[in-house]
Amino acid sequence: MTVRGMTKREPNPAEPMNLAFAEAAAARARGEVPVGAVVLSPDGQVLARAGNEVEARSDPTAHAEVLALRAAAAAIGSPRLEGCDLVVTLEPCPMCATAISFARIRRVVFAAYDPKGGGVDHGPRIFSQPTCHHRPEVVGGVQAAKAEALLKDFFAGLRA
Amino acid sequence: MTVRGMTKREPNPAEPMNLAFAEAAAARARGEVPVGAVVLSPDGQVLARAGNEVEARSDPTAHAEVLALRAAAAAIGSPRLEGCDLVVTLEPCPMCATAISFARIRRVVFAAYDPKGGGVDHGPRIFSQPTCHHRPEVVGGVQAAKAEALLKDFFAGLRA
Repeated sequence: MTVRGMTKREPNPAEPMNLAFAEAAAARARGEVPVGAVVLSPDGQVLARAGNEVEARSDPTAHAEVLALRAAAAAIGSPRLEGCDLVVTLEPCPMCATAISFARIRRVVFAAYDPKGGGVDHGPRIFSQPTCHHRPEVVGGVQAAKAEALLKDFFAGLRA
Repeated sequence: MTVRGMTKREPNPAEPMNLAFAEAAAARARGEVPVGAVVLSPDGQVLARAGNEVEARSDPTAHAEVLALRAAAAAIGSPRLEGCDLVVTLEPCPMCATAISFARIRRVVFAAYDPKGGGVDHGPRIFSQPTCHHRPEVVGGVQAAKAEALLKDFFAGLRA
């Protein structure tokens, strides 16, 4: 990537997704559904990163996205993450999508689509609801095959 | 209420709603949107109670229901609150409704309906989605006028 003039350094979008995959792998190693998420500041710095911890924390809300949003909001001292982006290895569920909207996330980038549990491009399509007051930009399917393989392998292991 | 035979003591449904209202009032005193929630064990004991703490915690997910679910799940050491009920002063939003489903709550009792932000009888109607895998029983409109007055008064105060 060529950067000219006095522009701010553009973060490489592959980097935060790779961090999210590292969190997903760590979640898997803990026996959790392998999903990882990263929250980036408006200038592309990593504010928070987290993997799914539903079982470890005994917390039904401890999806990677919720944990990353909470940590990022705590880091900046506000529940509103204006201008921040969220990068996650799986299409957010309706709970996480609504939390993303409440947090006023600017852009959501996700890897695998989730026809069974997703809430962005599937199910209730939270950001398309007339009662959704903040709609982030959405980029889906980034490194989707890698995320699908990780999830498929995890669930195959559970059934084995 | 007359109880015959060896039946388990039926909890008075007004009691947990009054606790939820006390949490809502405490939230209001902290400057938060006045919503309160209580989680009850299968035999009607209070497992957790919480009011909205979005601002105090700088946490976009810190709705009363999420905090009560998290505390109840931590108390019993499982993310699944089988047979438990949740009582809350306002119709849950889509985030909280999805969390309630994930937690496998048996019954949700709420006071005021929320046409603008609700996710149970309004908006995405989370429990009616084909991709919703656990649908609790829902009782809405319990002491609705009291909850509506509390919220109306709070928002009127913000505009004054």
